Amino acid sequence: MANSFGKLFTITTFGESHGPAIGGVIDGCPAGIELNFDTIQAELDRRKPGQSKIVTQRKEPDEVQFLSGIFEGKTTGASIGFIINNVHQRSNDYSHIKDSYRPSHADYTYDKKYGVRDYRGGGRTSARETANWVVGGAVAKQVIPNITINAYTSSVGDLFLEKPYQDIDFKETENNIVRCPDPEVAKKMIQKIDDIRKQGDTIGGTITCVVKNVPVGLGEPIFDKLHAQLGKAMLSINAVKGFEYGSGFCGAKMKGSEHNDIFNADGTTKTNLSGGIQGGISNGMDIYFRVAFKPVATIMQAQQTIDKKGDIVEMHGKGRHDPCVVPRAVPIVEALTAMVLVDFMLLNK
Amino acid sequence: MANSFGKLFTITTFGESHGPAIGGVIDGCPAGIELNFDTIQAELDRRKPGQSKIVTQRKEPDEVQFLSGIFEGKTTGASIGFIINNVHQRSNDYSHIKDSYRPSHADYTYDKKYGVRDYRGGGRTSARETANWVVGGAVAKQVIPNITINAYTSSVGDLFLEKPYQDIDFKETENNIVRCPDPEVAKKMIQKIDDIRKQGDTIGGTITCVVKNVPVGLGEPIFDKLHAQLGKAMLSINAVKGFEYGSGFCGAKMKGSEHNDIFNADGTTKTNLSGGIQGGISNGMDIYFRVAFKPVATIMQAQQTIDKKGDIVEMHGKGRHDPCVVPRAVPIVEALTAMVLVDFMLLNK
Amino acid sequence: MANSFGKLFTITTFGESHGPAIGGVIDGCPAGIELNFDTIQAELDRRKPGQSKIVTQRKEPDEVQFLSGIFEGKTTGASIGFIINNVHQRSNDYSHIKDSYRPSHADYTYDKKYGVRDYRGGGRTSARETANWVVGGAVAKQVIPNITINAYTSSVGDLFLEKPYQDIDFKETENNIVRCPDPEVAKKMIQKIDDIRKQGDTIGGTITCVVKNVPVGLGEPIFDKLHAQLGKAMLSINAVKGFEYGSGFCGAKMKGSEHNDIFNADGTTKTNLSGGIQGGISNGMDIYFRVAFKPVATIMQAQQTIDKKGDIVEMHGKGRHDPCVVPRAVPIVEALTAMVLVDFMLLNK
Amino acid sequence: MANSFGKLFTITTFGESHGPAIGGVIDGCPAGIELNFDTIQAELDRRKPGQSKIVTQRKEPDEVQFLSGIFEGKTTGASIGFIINNVHQRSNDYSHIKDSYRPSHADYTYDKKYGVRDYRGGGRTSARETANWVVGGAVAKQVIPNITINAYTSSVGDLFLEKPYQDIDFKETENNIVRCPDPEVAKKMIQKIDDIRKQGDTIGGTITCVVKNVPVGLGEPIFDKLHAQLGKAMLSINAVKGFEYGSGFCGAKMKGSEHNDIFNADGTTKTNLSGGIQGGISNGMDIYFRVAFKPVATIMQAQQTIDKKGDIVEMHGKGRHDPCVVPRAVPIVEALTAMVLVDFMLLNK
Repeated sequence: MANSFGKLFTITTFGESHGPAIGGVIDGCPAGIELNFDTIQAELDRRKPGQSKIVTQRKEPDEVQFLSGIFEGKTTGASIGFIINNVHQRSNDYSHIKDSYRPSHADYTYDKKYGVRDYRGGGRTSARETANWVVGGAVAKQVIPNITINAYTSSVGDLFLEKPYQDIDFKETENNIVRCPDPEVAKKMIQKIDDIRKQGDTIGGTITCVVKNVPVGLGEPIFDKLHAQLGKAMLSINAVKGFEYGSGFCGAKMKGSEHNDIFNADGTTKTNLSGGIQGGISNGMDIYFRVAFKPVATIMQAQQTIDKKGDIVEMHGKGRHDPCVVPRAVPIVEALTAMVLVDFMLLNK
Repeated sequence: MANSFGKLFTITTFGESHGPAIGGVIDGCPAGIELNFDTIQAELDRRKPGQSKIVTQRKEPDEVQFLSGIFEGKTTGASIGFIINNVHQRSNDYSHIKDSYRPSHADYTYDKKYGVRDYRGGGRTSARETANWVVGGAVAKQVIPNITINAYTSSVGDLFLEKPYQDIDFKETENNIVRCPDPEVAKKMIQKIDDIRKQGDTIGGTITCVVKNVPVGLGEPIFDKLHAQLGKAMLSINAVKGFEYGSGFCGAKMKGSEHNDIFNADGTTKTNLSGGIQGGISNGMDIYFRVAFKPVATIMQAQQTIDKKGDIVEMHGKGRHDPCVVPRAVPIVEALTAMVLVDFMLLNK
Repeated sequence: MANSFGKLFTITTFGESHGPAIGGVIDGCPAGIELNFDTIQAELDRRKPGQSKIVTQRKEPDEVQFLSGIFEGKTTGASIGFIINNVHQRSNDYSHIKDSYRPSHADYTYDKKYGVRDYRGGGRTSARETANWVVGGAVAKQVIPNITINAYTSSVGDLFLEKPYQDIDFKETENNIVRCPDPEVAKKMIQKIDDIRKQGDTIGGTITCVVKNVPVGLGEPIFDKLHAQLGKAMLSINAVKGFEYGSGFCGAKMKGSEHNDIFNADGTTKTNLSGGIQGGISNGMDIYFRVAFKPVATIMQAQQTIDKKGDIVEMHGKGRHDPCVVPRAVPIVEALTAMVLVDFMLLNK
Repeated sequence: MANSFGKLFTITTFGESHGPAIGGVIDGCPAGIELNFDTIQAELDRRKPGQSKIVTQRKEPDEVQFLSGIFEGKTTGASIGFIINNVHQRSNDYSHIKDSYRPSHADYTYDKKYGVRDYRGGGRTSARETANWVVGGAVAKQVIPNITINAYTSSVGDLFLEKPYQDIDFKETENNIVRCPDPEVAKKMIQKIDDIRKQGDTIGGTITCVVKNVPVGLGEPIFDKLHAQLGKAMLSINAVKGFEYGSGFCGAKMKGSEHNDIFNADGTTKTNLSGGIQGGISNGMDIYFRVAFKPVATIMQAQQTIDKKGDIVEMHGKGRHDPCVVPRAVPIVEALTAMVLVDFMLLNK
């Protein structure tokens, strides 16, 4: 079930960017949840292409249509089917990759694995798939309204938002197109992405996600630890190369006497290098983690590559692509986080 | 099934360090594999306590006994049950934590989640569990003899092995007790851990793992991508705080024109920032990834903490603990990697 | 994942008869299968309502639309999304059951379990769901073209087709509207159902299914035995009350000396009371099993029942219902069988 | 995970009758259950060989040893490992089947599927495996103490206990060695089995199981219906050929006007042909079902069979075998039922 995620709250997805529609099935959503459909669409709008000058200019309305599992505005406990029609695909944009493998894409591996490849728009590897996840996450968020999940752009290339998350006003995140909650840093990031775009190049970045009001007890050791499942979720996103939570890779440089989080009398801790998770189980403190995205592989510069026969050919990126994937990935990170949390909430009951 | 890992080649484990035995069930191992039991025991010996001065001095023979699934030295396709007896547990070492929560351990979260806790040796959270994984991995390695998996200590605290993995002679890894394949750096790391140990403190570190001769095509997108499953496996190991593969977090600083791996005519790539995986599927290049371990939480220094009633108490680490978890974690990283690879080999057929 | 079936070849479904559409996701279909869409639609036509005078007169075109996973007529290895629009729902047919529980339906249990119920057309419990399964089965059949699966009506009420399956010409099955391959018995069955229909009553029946050309080795003991999974599949169909394979309940009356299937030199057996499965694994002989269907619960006669408040009310069946479910269930039995077999083919590789 | 059963409360098993031990892992048992170990052993004693003259005379103490997951007599929420040592295996009893396939056993199919076979005692196909299930079921029963599960022998060959289950005093079941709760019928059954045994033959039979005090709401449609999972469980037991619940195969002969269960004002029903399950969900009425067992394949008479080379050989059953499997299968049916129910209790929460 390689296209399913989750144990009790699961999403099973399908779709390529150039087929008639993408979509999925949300299974295990508790009955009786009154869904706010505007909120769901708003999440999709945060991810959708064409929303600003620093993202792909492909235009897609990304309107989700729910087909089942909801009656008189409430979930019924039945599986929730949904589709998002593909409106503006232009298949001819992709004829140049029909027989050639784009560097650092999945063209080569898909062809070798499956022997057949829907080359239009990357087929199943298209980041369009993540719209399905945003639907799942938007439903999941409504199952756990008291938990707040805030992701934001924490770096673009070598530009970092240096502030610790505790000093950040998350309400600022949506006030700029790069989704960095510090207006000054955001301005620089936007400039950087725009410069990169003009060079026909792309740039990587990182997203930090902070989760507040998590109840104690989420996570199922030994193998379904909360952070392990969060990590798997994040590593499922296109272009992700790394995941760390709490002290992360920095923690590997520290001493135990520095790293240990000393308890307060109420069970909270004075520091939170643990990142809200101990032994794979939430401890009630804020959960925070960071996700690394490589630069988008499609660049508007000439690159050498090979075709199916193994001949060397020159390729030049075409079509409408993101110079930096990070701004649009912020709602995706939140969506997967929400689904992971709901799943563990249900497992914990 | 929180104590199971894998889809077709699975391991299901049990055991606490202070019960009579730990063990597990390996399910889905192909039939007809002629097992070398000395090799399996040798892997356990690499993980076992008491092997050197820089690891815990607890003595355990860690002898695995196979109970089923093997006939005349060959696997039969039936599930393979195994146990490892616990020999040298000293339960009285743990009476001081019966009612108190050790900082940055899972004592608090287990107590809150389950309402009952086997406090002896950390109960189910003990790293002793990883001996089970080494058994599973040692069997898995014999299913894929042509794939070579080499993990090694790549940093201890702020001491880094700076060499790229391509310049490393993996045969050196087992020649020193810290399992760093560079003798000079190894010597410094050993000294550092020994100093830390004498201070009653602990230190973090990282492990790098390199996998060669992987066939093209392993990995099952969209949600069971090869690197996502490797990440989940690594994040299951006690004390792990981060995972990155290929260019990892560094890749997030790069431009697409720098990061793309240009193809050679034979489908190999000139560079390998992708880390041997594209679109979640192995491309035949070396797979490499890095895992961050926090410092062990049990230190031999006085720390303030709380007891079950919420009263502040002072705690002083007792028992026999590792000053740095990394040297003994090297075979664990390899074991989980082997199990993930076999699982995808079977899914790919 | 209560709306998913299968391990490697899986179907995940959604939909109620009175929503905009039903549908599902087929995951794990091997790549490179050239699909014949006419054949798929023909299977749906065998199940569809309104096809004859002895089935429900509800009219639905039941046209399946594939949304993904297929490129240039071939499967790509990606998940296959599909929908079937609901065209002729008449929600007002169901207002009489909004607050009352129909006897021997799932109205009561769904209401108690979920606290909310889509009462229109039975909501998720509608047999309309089985159209999704027929799509999955029709795809599955094309993955295993050499295996032939023939189901047929073997009894209606107390009218039995007494012939052993070996004497049956399966080509006759589709030549009559009750799908009994013996024209004489078929005529009586049709008459019986028509009589029952005129009385406003319903009648039960059984379906026998015969599978030929099954390779040796399908089935995964201990818990995923071939017949156990077939049984689970059949027991998932609405109205099914029993499953038996090979000698079935009759076998429970026999002696070992009568029941044992003696081998021929080539590994085939002289008799086949085992039903083609030994130890949960196919032995290459014909697989045959029988499925019992209770009479449809909706009858056109007055029945006493209760409403949500627990008051006794009188209810009279309305709408368009089947007097006997068996004729339309024949393709459903085949579809589930095909999916089970493909799943085990993939697990066996 | 072919050796695992269950979703949240799972058992994963291993073992052959002629290895050192069999055993398993119970995962997902709720924490805080105070286990009565005498009760668990008592269940094993009901299944164990050598308990009476009408069962196999092999002697095995069948003492279960718990290795983990229990602390101070209570479950901790961690996985529960257990083993049962094999004491009295006599491997030389099986040399005659090393190269030959016993008729209607799994020798042939295992050899063809796996290419290697542990022929001693049937290897993994031995009914000894079911001792593991009895352990799992005995634990499960203690998780749901208010639900009562009573299985009993309802037929041996053509000798039937004709009484409806409502008229049966379940306390009589354990008062005779055939486990039929009617003393008169039991006497005849015992005589019949003893006669069959003396002829060197075996006989089939059926077991009926009745479950009382089941809460409304257990079962997870569409595919994890309560009766579908019960059916799969029963069909996993060695020698089972059929499963029916409620009206079963008889229901297929009935009319809707006869079969429908009319409600009382309190939601109970006047009749219970539904068998306590509607739409795959328990309705609070008694659940009852019936399981068909074929005669044991090993008979003490000469039979013709083939060897690995395909040569015809004569075989004569040796060793210690059951003339009728049904008396010892009664606790197995109960055990699997208990595990299924606990699983759905946890899924329902």
